[in-house]
Amino acid sequence: MEERFVDVAIIGAGTAGLNAMGQVRRAGKTFVLINGGDAGTTCARVGCMPSKALIQVAEDYHKGTHLRRYGVSGGAELKLDAPETLEYVRHIRDTLVDRVLTNSTDGLAPEVFIEDYARLLEPTLIEVGGQRIRAGAVVIATGSRPLVPEAWRAFGDRLITSDNLFELETLPASLAVIGLGVIGLELGQSLARLGVAVTGFDQLDTLGGIRDPEVLTQAKAIIGKDLPLHLGQAARIEEDGGQLRVSAGDQSVRVDQVLCCIGRVPNVEGLGLECLGLPLDRRGLPPFDNRTMQVGDLPVYIAGDVDGERPILHEAGDEGKIAGFNAARGGNTAFRRKVPIAITFCDPNLCAVGARFDELDPATTAIGQIPFAPVGRALVMGQTQGLLRLYGDKASGRLLGAEMIGAKGENLAHLLCWSITLGLTAGQMLRLPFYHPVMEEALQAALYHLYSQVDAKNSGGLLELAEIEN
Amino acid sequence: MEERFVDVAIIGAGTAGLNAMGQVRRAGKTFVLINGGDAGTTCARVGCMPSKALIQVAEDYHKGTHLRRYGVSGGAELKLDAPETLEYVRHIRDTLVDRVLTNSTDGLAPEVFIEDYARLLEPTLIEVGGQRIRAGAVVIATGSRPLVPEAWRAFGDRLITSDNLFELETLPASLAVIGLGVIGLELGQSLARLGVAVTGFDQLDTLGGIRDPEVLTQAKAIIGKDLPLHLGQAARIEEDGGQLRVSAGDQSVRVDQVLCCIGRVPNVEGLGLECLGLPLDRRGLPPFDNRTMQVGDLPVYIAGDVDGERPILHEAGDEGKIAGFNAARGGNTAFRRKVPIAITFCDPNLCAVGARFDELDPATTAIGQIPFAPVGRALVMGQTQGLLRLYGDKASGRLLGAEMIGAKGENLAHLLCWSITLGLTAGQMLRLPFYHPVMEEALQAALYHLYSQVDAKNSGGLLELAEIEN
Repeated sequence: MEERFVDVAIIGAGTAGLNAMGQVRRAGKTFVLINGGDAGTTCARVGCMPSKALIQVAEDYHKGTHLRRYGVSGGAELKLDAPETLEYVRHIRDTLVDRVLTNSTDGLAPEVFIEDYARLLEPTLIEVGGQRIRAGAVVIATGSRPLVPEAWRAFGDRLITSDNLFELETLPASLAVIGLGVIGLELGQSLARLGVAVTGFDQLDTLGGIRDPEVLTQAKAIIGKDLPLHLGQAARIEEDGGQLRVSAGDQSVRVDQVLCCIGRVPNVEGLGLECLGLPLDRRGLPPFDNRTMQVGDLPVYIAGDVDGERPILHEAGDEGKIAGFNAARGGNTAFRRKVPIAITFCDPNLCAVGARFDELDPATTAIGQIPFAPVGRALVMGQTQGLLRLYGDKASGRLLGAEMIGAKGENLAHLLCWSITLGLTAGQMLRLPFYHPVMEEALQAALYHLYSQVDAKNSGGLLELAEIEN
Repeated sequence: MEERFVDVAIIGAGTAGLNAMGQVRRAGKTFVLINGGDAGTTCARVGCMPSKALIQVAEDYHKGTHLRRYGVSGGAELKLDAPETLEYVRHIRDTLVDRVLTNSTDGLAPEVFIEDYARLLEPTLIEVGGQRIRAGAVVIATGSRPLVPEAWRAFGDRLITSDNLFELETLPASLAVIGLGVIGLELGQSLARLGVAVTGFDQLDTLGGIRDPEVLTQAKAIIGKDLPLHLGQAARIEEDGGQLRVSAGDQSVRVDQVLCCIGRVPNVEGLGLECLGLPLDRRGLPPFDNRTMQVGDLPVYIAGDVDGERPILHEAGDEGKIAGFNAARGGNTAFRRKVPIAITFCDPNLCAVGARFDELDPATTAIGQIPFAPVGRALVMGQTQGLLRLYGDKASGRLLGAEMIGAKGENLAHLLCWSITLGLTAGQMLRLPFYHPVMEEALQAALYHLYSQVDAKNSGGLLELAEIEN
């Protein structure tokens, strides 16, 4: 078989692969972009975007049916047409997928954009669609897919994942969500609010990856109002008269469908990574450096969800850029990665930023916290549930991390993540403007609480205002 | 009449006065807190808080009646019970007023908290409730009230202001809002969404204090969908068969009530400021330094809405602290004031941060902008209207200011205001995390646009990521 040569071969046309391509193009190198299966970012196809569309409908519908306290009647008469709602969600999804893909791959010649599955024969020799491509460097950006235990496949289309949920014609009457990480929590709560009888299961005693015990207590109480939660024991599924019975410990429920959200696995089957000559871990992944995205010492780079480290869009984009930059140069330039930020778009939002509760030394860490109930805007919004916890260095007051469940968490998380990145202290943050009446005042109150516990105090006579030097 | 002496006399028990009191107490000085009329912050009594409660009802009701696109039916059947809605708004207001006042004035002896109107006889001699108080220093924090032209008072209770709107038993069928600044815009849009036939008038050709012509064009189109806007000509009111006719230029409308929002005036009548021996401006205010809050060279300080400079809660709080700090010490320590931030809580939000469009030199300023339509989250939220404009220094890329109308503007405004305060450049901001899919991505897109026009570029190979030094 004839071999043709390109500078860089990119396997995967999702967020990471497309960002890698951008860097390779900018460096003026030749490349191929290879994609087996559906092209386009996981985010827009089956991830963040359709789920957020579903969440928006669920929140608005839920709110519409609960307007009573405002002096509005008739909310109970609101009716949901599930097939129409799902059609709407798919429409939003398709609009966004098209937008990303059209911008990125339109105008690529067929020999540059190859829509088939790739296999590595050597670290830089790829077989795809009956041809062989020798590349100066390879970027692996094949993404991930939902994990489904082999035994559960026997339940056929009654066992769904985030990959096919949005393809449903209509919603089931009852459903169990197994796995209450980010995906299971967002989808489970939304489906419950759309009228599905949802029961949640997770073998761990947590929700959405929460690690702070105080936040977890709040989250269980808040989310538990939308769906029963069975945590801490693995769930089993059995046939039960045409339906499925899901059990965990003493708990058991009969449902029409099961939404399986127990995790995601890297798309590496058939990719031939064993030819790299490196040890592969239990997920089938080779070792790599997350500052250079280089795999071992090879001219091979890995980026995005396939590597399993930071499966969110902006980090996949960063990894794609780093991988593409280094692949185009055969280099290993190291880049500083971003302060972690994780948002679960349940209602209210669940967010974690920076250092996690269990990573911190209690002896040197101060915790500032505020429940949302006393925040004026929370009262006005009718969203008084929640808790914000800030972790700071006891000596300097420097903000280290935060975890929270509360309204507008997604927005507060950005302020927190930016402040941590910029190295701000509680005292410095309290000199920044907080408008009124906004949810940012919850952050302000938590900062006052944190500040009261730290050694370093702001100079001058007023905590909140800096004196002008004469 | 006998005189008693205190270190500091504070006139006004609103946000500024209460913050001044906090500083005087902290300094261990004696004081009196004097308040004529309703005590408590304007914000919670008749300002931000009840208006935000009304806005929240209006937004949720409006959304409830517009769920059709989601596959939800029955929204048109939602009915609003206006008396019940107004009762709800008052309940929220009273809860918040009580919270602030109880925390602040409970436990003050009657000779310390004097509920009557004060009059200055000399700069530091006050007559109040039949007694005379000699003070080491005086803090004037008497607030402001809606301006109503004398001639319009003849229309009785058909001419309302934000002071009595929330006391209405029910909503009128039709209403004209005269004055479309922050207050008129927020209340006018909310009332329109609650079913009142609202018509808006302003003698200036702008809305909510917008100064950027591109933002204004957008705002007129967006707000104009909720209520007809007649801008650029002064409005007249006449009797018209028991109703009121409001006219401006060729435009004319007959309405049940008029909401007068043409501005606010300082509460200085009867206060005796002429005894200060300083020239008073046309509003009756003496000269003062907004970094020390000192009035002339006198042991007199002014703070909060009465001074007319920054009539928003967090600035009134700052001014109260500065005035109280200096009054307690007889000093004139200067403090650095915050970067301006202004939010109009119409839907979508209207925000201005930092330097204004008309204050900038076009020769040295670059403008980054993005309409909200292409932002994924905006599409998901069904809030694709709006425009964000960022002003940056062309050479350095340093962010100078911003103006916008768009969803979640209140949250983006905080990120912008903090970034300006911290002196960040567009390039530095693009290295901060932006999650997906969030409205903060609108800001990210506008920053890319701004960055493309500035001279200073980020060091290293990747715009968005800093290289790690070896």
